[in-house]
Amino acid sequence: MSLLVVGSIALDSVETPFGRTEEALGGSALFFAAAGSLLCPVQVVGVVGRDYPMDELQRLARRGLDLRGVSVADGESFRWSGRYGFDLQTRETLETRLGVFANFRPVIPEPFRDAEFVFLGNIDPELQLDVLKQVRSPRLVACDTMNFWIQGKRTALLKLLERVDVLLVNDAEVRELSGDWHVYRAARWVLKHGPRFVVVKRGEHGAMLVEEGRIFYVPAFPLDDVFDPTGAGDSFAGGFMAYLAGTGDLSSDNLRRAMVYGSAMGSFAVERFSTARFDEIAAADVQARVRAHRDLVHFEIDVEPDAVG
Amino acid sequence: MSLLVVGSIALDSVETPFGRTEEALGGSALFFAAAGSLLCPVQVVGVVGRDYPMDELQRLARRGLDLRGVSVADGESFRWSGRYGFDLQTRETLETRLGVFANFRPVIPEPFRDAEFVFLGNIDPELQLDVLKQVRSPRLVACDTMNFWIQGKRTALLKLLERVDVLLVNDAEVRELSGDWHVYRAARWVLKHGPRFVVVKRGEHGAMLVEEGRIFYVPAFPLDDVFDPTGAGDSFAGGFMAYLAGTGDLSSDNLRRAMVYGSAMGSFAVERFSTARFDEIAAADVQARVRAHRDLVHFEIDVEPDAVG
Repeated sequence: MSLLVVGSIALDSVETPFGRTEEALGGSALFFAAAGSLLCPVQVVGVVGRDYPMDELQRLARRGLDLRGVSVADGESFRWSGRYGFDLQTRETLETRLGVFANFRPVIPEPFRDAEFVFLGNIDPELQLDVLKQVRSPRLVACDTMNFWIQGKRTALLKLLERVDVLLVNDAEVRELSGDWHVYRAARWVLKHGPRFVVVKRGEHGAMLVEEGRIFYVPAFPLDDVFDPTGAGDSFAGGFMAYLAGTGDLSSDNLRRAMVYGSAMGSFAVERFSTARFDEIAAADVQARVRAHRDLVHFEIDVEPDAVG
Repeated sequence: MSLLVVGSIALDSVETPFGRTEEALGGSALFFAAAGSLLCPVQVVGVVGRDYPMDELQRLARRGLDLRGVSVADGESFRWSGRYGFDLQTRETLETRLGVFANFRPVIPEPFRDAEFVFLGNIDPELQLDVLKQVRSPRLVACDTMNFWIQGKRTALLKLLERVDVLLVNDAEVRELSGDWHVYRAARWVLKHGPRFVVVKRGEHGAMLVEEGRIFYVPAFPLDDVFDPTGAGDSFAGGFMAYLAGTGDLSSDNLRRAMVYGSAMGSFAVERFSTARFDEIAAADVQARVRAHRDLVHFEIDVEPDAVG
């Protein structure tokens, strides 16, 4: 089934204790699509400046990214640079230059308007709403957001949530959005405002899927070396949505599997700078990591419900 | 099979955003035994002062605690008081009065010396070693420790580790012990120094079981209301060890189940002050929570290893 992502396409300069990269492929839409395209083709809508390395994008196109929705505008591409602390938990933004992304008004190309699965990357909720006016009848809409919009565009964000099936955010964001510091209660607050599912990403501690009456938890895959955490959340979203789009199954059990595929993609993302790890792996590697995830949490119990007094 | 715990027996005064309790039952050995005794009788070795509420201890004795190893010494009982911050993550110790615990020299009563499962609560590693001289041939020895001993009694602690099967610590402790900030590498460092298994407790994020070539992760059970985190780690240890002692199975798969029983006990502990929650529940409640834990992490995948190219 068809999968559409709308979001940022950036050039990232990142410094970690283990090295640095300059002007590498980045942005929510690119991480999402680089990960997701291992499972299912991804239609990308975004904007770059004339300085963007188009040969790099073309390389990704050969891997299943449909870039007909990427417009090239006069001006500089979106650039972000940051530095991670020794534990890779703390991140300092050194510079953000929005460039052409500042005037991004997503236009969904006609061939993408029938997309059945839609992911609205972290942009102004008014633009996210505008994307939903352009797509015809998606089966599943998911979105991300951030503190900047929670604080500055709350009304539009709440209006958006009414039309969204899955909200993917981190724990700080779901707390801020709901006004409840308790993550599970915060997630249930969201369920009362539109989405049927909330995915709460908790970095090195994993991610939770919260729906009415049921919670699923997937720990982060244990890695000996985390190289660069940039893009882990968007890669998670890419794996999650691409698995759903690839299978077409919206049952609660299948969303659980999608969480595990998301987690696997997040764990690959952090093993290299930028989207580089996704160039090295294939679907079989993803499946192997999904099986390893299963061994990470699996246990057998004999106790049957009716055997308990 | 027989299960022995050696550790502190205290009177805790705790303040949380939700209430306060004064001089309630506490200490590592009591939390361990209150939890563990739901699954298997527990032999307790510790010391109290003459001011300890012995009627409360007698009440626990009726629930499966064998208190013949609890000596009553002249002087004041061990008292601890602390206050938790709004998020229940940060804890401030207001007062620690060791009292008779300062001179605690564990003497294992003759009937306890054949204990097959031994848990050495967080005391001076020299005393933990001394306990091991008194027990005859335990099938499994587990121990806890803390930063104070890691810094001040490192040599004795390393000598102890050579004789221990399972080390249970939190993430800060395993990092400090190994000198490696990376938790998985830190745990594997421990595996090279004696224990076959390392349990790393990560508070609200759950716990990991690390053994050679295999990691198991159990998330903390999602609770709507955490009332008082005091004793969660010791209750975890009590559930973990009592499940192993009750089943007598030391396979890797059974240690995984023991982790889930530990996690269930930890989640009960925090629902009330002190050990109060364990007075309200029975083995069936524990099993129900273990099943709920399974639903929290369970997912099905079709991908078979040999189906992957």
